[in-house]
Amino acid sequence: MSAGFIIGLDFGTLSARGVLIDAATGVQQAISTAAYRHGVMTTHLANGRRLPQHYALQDAADYREAAESVLRDLGQGRKILSIGLDFTASSPLPTRADGTPLSALHPDDPHAYVKLWKHAAAQPYADAINARGGDFLAACGGRLSGEWMLAKAAQLAEEAPDLWAETDKFIEAGDWMTWQLTGVERRSQDFAAYKAQYRPGIGYPADVVLGLAARLAPPATVGTAVGPLNAAWRSRTGIEGPAIVSVAVIDSHVVLPAVGAVRPGAWVGALGTSAAYLLLEDKPLPLPPGLEAMAQGAVLPEFWCYEAGQAGFGDMLAWFVNTFPRDADPARNFALYNDEAATLSPGANHLVTLDWWSGNRVPYADSGLSGLIAGFTMGTTAAGIYRGLLESLCYGAHVIMDRLTQSGLDIAEILLTSGLAHNNPLLIQIMADVLGREITVPALANPTSVGAAIHGAVAGQIVTGFADGAARFGATDGQHYNPDDQRHKAYQAIYRSYLDLAETSAVRDTLRGLNHHQHTSLTVPGYDAR
Amino acid sequence: MSAGFIIGLDFGTLSARGVLIDAATGVQQAISTAAYRHGVMTTHLANGRRLPQHYALQDAADYREAAESVLRDLGQGRKILSIGLDFTASSPLPTRADGTPLSALHPDDPHAYVKLWKHAAAQPYADAINARGGDFLAACGGRLSGEWMLAKAAQLAEEAPDLWAETDKFIEAGDWMTWQLTGVERRSQDFAAYKAQYRPGIGYPADVVLGLAARLAPPATVGTAVGPLNAAWRSRTGIEGPAIVSVAVIDSHVVLPAVGAVRPGAWVGALGTSAAYLLLEDKPLPLPPGLEAMAQGAVLPEFWCYEAGQAGFGDMLAWFVNTFPRDADPARNFALYNDEAATLSPGANHLVTLDWWSGNRVPYADSGLSGLIAGFTMGTTAAGIYRGLLESLCYGAHVIMDRLTQSGLDIAEILLTSGLAHNNPLLIQIMADVLGREITVPALANPTSVGAAIHGAVAGQIVTGFADGAARFGATDGQHYNPDDQRHKAYQAIYRSYLDLAETSAVRDTLRGLNHHQHTSLTVPGYDAR
Repeated sequence: MSAGFIIGLDFGTLSARGVLIDAATGVQQAISTAAYRHGVMTTHLANGRRLPQHYALQDAADYREAAESVLRDLGQGRKILSIGLDFTASSPLPTRADGTPLSALHPDDPHAYVKLWKHAAAQPYADAINARGGDFLAACGGRLSGEWMLAKAAQLAEEAPDLWAETDKFIEAGDWMTWQLTGVERRSQDFAAYKAQYRPGIGYPADVVLGLAARLAPPATVGTAVGPLNAAWRSRTGIEGPAIVSVAVIDSHVVLPAVGAVRPGAWVGALGTSAAYLLLEDKPLPLPPGLEAMAQGAVLPEFWCYEAGQAGFGDMLAWFVNTFPRDADPARNFALYNDEAATLSPGANHLVTLDWWSGNRVPYADSGLSGLIAGFTMGTTAAGIYRGLLESLCYGAHVIMDRLTQSGLDIAEILLTSGLAHNNPLLIQIMADVLGREITVPALANPTSVGAAIHGAVAGQIVTGFADGAARFGATDGQHYNPDDQRHKAYQAIYRSYLDLAETSAVRDTLRGLNHHQHTSLTVPGYDAR
Repeated sequence: MSAGFIIGLDFGTLSARGVLIDAATGVQQAISTAAYRHGVMTTHLANGRRLPQHYALQDAADYREAAESVLRDLGQGRKILSIGLDFTASSPLPTRADGTPLSALHPDDPHAYVKLWKHAAAQPYADAINARGGDFLAACGGRLSGEWMLAKAAQLAEEAPDLWAETDKFIEAGDWMTWQLTGVERRSQDFAAYKAQYRPGIGYPADVVLGLAARLAPPATVGTAVGPLNAAWRSRTGIEGPAIVSVAVIDSHVVLPAVGAVRPGAWVGALGTSAAYLLLEDKPLPLPPGLEAMAQGAVLPEFWCYEAGQAGFGDMLAWFVNTFPRDADPARNFALYNDEAATLSPGANHLVTLDWWSGNRVPYADSGLSGLIAGFTMGTTAAGIYRGLLESLCYGAHVIMDRLTQSGLDIAEILLTSGLAHNNPLLIQIMADVLGREITVPALANPTSVGAAIHGAVAGQIVTGFADGAARFGATDGQHYNPDDQRHKAYQAIYRSYLDLAETSAVRDTLRGLNHHQHTSLTVPGYDAR
């Protein structure tokens, strides 16, 4: 056993959260969080300058400040064996050759800042790139998202050409952070594959954004070391020991080893505001139609990982209880609706709901769609509607599962994690009944930060690999939900109705027409998808 | 001017309501109501005997008791010139040749009682008759309702043959009541045409229910006299004067002269729990597809009347505010939702709703359909949904208007009456905006009873006809709602979405499949539509 600690750092949208784990026992000894000083800048910069619509920026200096606080808190005077970290993505920034963010040089220019993952103003550039097409789109279902790096680079190059000329590096904030901590620029294949369409043996897509390739760098597979924490950061934080920093990982990907998903056939769903699903396989099958992305060696070494999600999930339930409150306390609201919904049997509400409040990602990749509830009668109750929403979220997951298995991929085990998986057992039981599959909710505190710590431990050779890391630091047990045959049968009939509605193009046309929340007001100034 | 009074009696589902009007001035002097002692018997008879499912019976003796109370209250010691009355329909009962209800002779037999209009257990007989078909179905869109007389006669003849053998008369409760009051059996062409498919020159349908024709009688046109109130009733009530009783009228038809609908092109909607629409025309066009019934001289002499309705109306709004209450007081609930909904502009809720909570009558004649709300986003509000329900009710009315006008019928004026027309100005303004037509809500208290009084006045020759009766006793002014061009344009686009959804058979199939509240549990014992 090694005497010392490992650290996992999770850089989220509003704050960084770190966990300190005893490397010998696997026990979580401490956690620490630090909010970003400027949060998310959507309406104006820190100096008061107004931002256009659909912007979401961050200041890279805030990441350094938060990291320093958390690392000092957890590591001061301690022997730290390794540091792993995950980051939101795609959240790229332009820097000079030495890593200086351009925002430090041009604080008045919005394009000098980090374009946070949810910065939506680059969507027209994604649309233009998609319209042009290219082989590199095969691994992401033919559609780049405006949230990804290529679209954000295109926006910068087009709208701020002088700044683009000054940009030596265009880099994900996660890669920038490991560079800061170690003095070594070593990019992550996870960001590169999923957010910049990098393909091993082929490289980044050529000719999509002029000059972008020269501002990137070949990536390293996850679980490799960037280098030891450098002297400046050791003096800032008081950290001792080898403190090997691993390459960064996308925040939604890092949880896999923490919940024991280190085998082919493991399907992991993170059920939060939206839902993200990852399937590990040892088969390089073409991306199933309607799915969102796949890559090899980017989420975990060796494996292929197939990615898909639901645009809305927990937010739909929150919408319902907030729109029709039964109690001033939101938690009590959920409890009241859940308790009453739990008394209903499948089909007793006579409703079927399309879970598209925030649009649909799989299989229609259409953010302009909206939700629908069918089957109202004079006997419909509020709790029946709430249960219909729960059920619809499970039908949405069923669609993703069908796409995967119909393409020949195996789902050997289903692991659900994040807030709703732990807080809403009724939802998870309905999920098991709808899917007709056993579901495990792994028991582990701070799973994202722990996942990051396992990445660090692999890079620092504290463990022999991800399976060993999962066994030593990940969840060792969990809650099991088994499907009921009769309920599954009842839900299959309603799922058929769900599909009947979803697959009727006249229905989708109407739902699309009613929802005008799309980025139709954006214009692309002269951009022609070079 | 005649010195004296006229009386209108409205026999509703739970009570009789009378109005006393000064024949000289037209002023309403008094009203009186009396509840039926046994109300509606749905689960058991007065003696405790259990009833089968879907039954709704009444005791004819209750009508006599209520009429005596109201007539004494209004008429004792007064000179009464005429008495008009309306009744729910079809609410038939079996009697002996002298008018004695069989329920007085066989109080234990459910089939001896009045089968109230909403008695639903005869639906399978209507289905069987419809399946067999016949020319007489042309005037009711090819479909008898199970609420109508032929279906109820078929049920009695089939399920209680001994009682049927004892039945000398099978008679609408309204016709039975005028017979009681005068000693003269004179049936109403209104009941005959709309509820028993009587056609002038042809008669009642032959061979539909064996022996039914012999138990009916040729009807008289509305506005004719049955006879003067007889001696027994004069002594019971203390009424003096000529007291001419007119033939009975269907309760939903009687209001026309009271609201001034005495001209071709008058389209009257009664907006209550459900909605009923009547269009007066001087043209005998074929019944427009999807409409429910038409007849000549049955609602008002001279005119053709085309009938259609919405299965659910005010009940949908009540469902919403009761399901999602904002206040313990129902009236305050409505006010809160109405106030907030009134601040929204057309289309701001991004929703379209199919108003089929209680099924659809026009154009699908399908009680198995259910409701739908499309267009939910994270920005959808409770008041937006409520407004969507208001709008959907107006789209449902629009469908009926389209069917009428597309068939070549003229709608010269739109008159809306009943509770919601007076209580919910927001709804009526939306109706004007959706239809793109001026709407008048006639101002008149007790319009149904006043309509009955006008029928009596015509029969008693107190007035020269219905137009004169309307002018002297009906509404003389009202509230006018004018459509706004811009709002109308906005609603036309949403109405197109409403039609897109409604006309998609996959949508209707799903809505039908989800709603299992149909009479599927009923069996027809050996009935083969003789």
